[in-house]
Amino acid sequence: MSRFFSEKYSSLVPYTPGEQPRERKYLKLNTNESPFPPSEKAQKYASDAATKLELYSDPECTALHASFAGICGVQSDEVIATNGSDEILNFAFMAYCDKNTPAAFADITYGFYSVFADINNVPYKKIPLRDDFGINISDYFGIGATIFIANPNAPTGIALSRNEIEEIIKANPDNIVVVDEAYVDFGAESCVPLIHKYDNLLVTQTFSKSRSMAGGRLGFGIASKGLIADLKTIKYSTNPYNVNSMTMAAGLGVLEDEEYTRTNCRIISENRDYLLRELTKLGFSVTPSKTNFVFAAHPNISGKTLYEKLREMGILVRHFDGAKISNYNRITVGTREQTDTLLDAIKKILS
Amino acid sequence: MSRFFSEKYSSLVPYTPGEQPRERKYLKLNTNESPFPPSEKAQKYASDAATKLELYSDPECTALHASFAGICGVQSDEVIATNGSDEILNFAFMAYCDKNTPAAFADITYGFYSVFADINNVPYKKIPLRDDFGINISDYFGIGATIFIANPNAPTGIALSRNEIEEIIKANPDNIVVVDEAYVDFGAESCVPLIHKYDNLLVTQTFSKSRSMAGGRLGFGIASKGLIADLKTIKYSTNPYNVNSMTMAAGLGVLEDEEYTRTNCRIISENRDYLLRELTKLGFSVTPSKTNFVFAAHPNISGKTLYEKLREMGILVRHFDGAKISNYNRITVGTREQTDTLLDAIKKILS
Repeated sequence: MSRFFSEKYSSLVPYTPGEQPRERKYLKLNTNESPFPPSEKAQKYASDAATKLELYSDPECTALHASFAGICGVQSDEVIATNGSDEILNFAFMAYCDKNTPAAFADITYGFYSVFADINNVPYKKIPLRDDFGINISDYFGIGATIFIANPNAPTGIALSRNEIEEIIKANPDNIVVVDEAYVDFGAESCVPLIHKYDNLLVTQTFSKSRSMAGGRLGFGIASKGLIADLKTIKYSTNPYNVNSMTMAAGLGVLEDEEYTRTNCRIISENRDYLLRELTKLGFSVTPSKTNFVFAAHPNISGKTLYEKLREMGILVRHFDGAKISNYNRITVGTREQTDTLLDAIKKILS
Repeated sequence: MSRFFSEKYSSLVPYTPGEQPRERKYLKLNTNESPFPPSEKAQKYASDAATKLELYSDPECTALHASFAGICGVQSDEVIATNGSDEILNFAFMAYCDKNTPAAFADITYGFYSVFADINNVPYKKIPLRDDFGINISDYFGIGATIFIANPNAPTGIALSRNEIEEIIKANPDNIVVVDEAYVDFGAESCVPLIHKYDNLLVTQTFSKSRSMAGGRLGFGIASKGLIADLKTIKYSTNPYNVNSMTMAAGLGVLEDEEYTRTNCRIISENRDYLLRELTKLGFSVTPSKTNFVFAAHPNISGKTLYEKLREMGILVRHFDGAKISNYNRITVGTREQTDTLLDAIKKILS
């Protein structure tokens, strides 16, 4: 830290993204990327956009907003596109939290929430999960905080039903509830249909997982017009051209190819259920994941050791330190072939 | 504004980007875009990257940082890539300004500085330009503030010399001086060589103007290692994957084609000097622009009227309200043909 760095950040600890090693070729099952390339339309539209980069991208994201709103069954002014969903989450911390309105989220969830709170100088409360990693919804009733719920949750993979989340939204009419649906397309229920019923709901989604665009950086907020207007105020006060024209074009291509997305999600969900069954047969404890990853621990080997042994064998999974979860690994679900490669490696390690 | 929006933003007025109308085809001379397409290598590399979007972009921007550092004659850990230069400017306001360290900038300069200050809750001081729109460097000596200088300045186009800026940097050893070099490639002197001499200097640049990548969103900070480390702390606490993989690839392509950039800058600078001469002949007051735009006023027609009449004729220029500059228009320099189209239109309006 330089001597000029603002004191307000003196204890800031940044987020650590999943490792992206370049020293050898790994089977990457550590950052929940899709095993499938982006749709061909996305590739073609992005290439076309690359020929016209001399012109600014449309700051209003007119075509992209209209297309995504159509898929969601909402209006164009009920969505906002961002530079990945990290940006919309940061916007939410900026817009809806401050010294008087703390944030609240689970003790085991997306690790970035506490960093967003810290950089925005927002107090926050961590609400413990149950021992089975589930959420007690009543813990979130009327708590006078802006609530962030990853649904399904990460790294546990466990989802609440829409009805359960609706109970939380109803029980906090004077506070925003942010539902982070990064992994919703693999089997959970989206809360998007609730945005017309509740003015305190912000749903965030990403194109990084189900839509094969992690490298393209495209996220969305979906909410009532009033909240979207707030979030646009933040956007136009930080980075009006936050979404570049190639990403916008690729996003449009993906949305014109929804059948491809749905097929990929179905295949990945089937592979996940297969992986969960096989890991259970091998003696693992697994959570009932509704995502493109599994969260698994074995009684005979520590989470860290399994991670390290898989790494030696050329397979990357993600291990988190932390009292309740250090015995677990979060493992991305890839193709059936990748899943079998992983299972073979685990069998060798356990034998 | 919704009832949930944080009170800290209750009086926030966002930045207004230049208009991007879609109702008809305009000759766009209003947002200082390049008239030339991005280099062919940039287009090709971006298209290749679009085929692999399912993987996250490299958060460390390893290849791009190395390439840009090489062009700048600095080390990889002395640069940071951002989602356009608006992002690096916002990072600078976050990192180096707070309640105790106000910002300072010219009264007539990039209009976003005051918005960045407002959204970060930073007090600021506007320092008046001289009547000829020049900067009195002594106005910036030892003022106990983080200083933002657009060099060349916008919308005036006027540049300070490197020696003059060095005087400002030397006179503020305990405060950061940010030199925003968005337009530096059209004839001004860059302060990049000074980063090894002064630990309080941050230079920002953009690929939106000279490098034909406005739609790609790529900016850079160049500074001593200590400052770059601060700025990376901000990046990893807000958006670790802030630069997408297509933009990173396009940026690499542009940097491998520096001759193309230099040729384009030479042509645009020649067209600018031609436009300045012709406007002067027509009775305009012009500033000695070192950018890809001119700033011009005519005694017989108000700035607003000229803007409106050009718009009716299908030519967009940028008009700013503001006491000292409302008689002026900022006009982007395009190709020679575009410049002649503009001049013909102006002659008709004045006749």
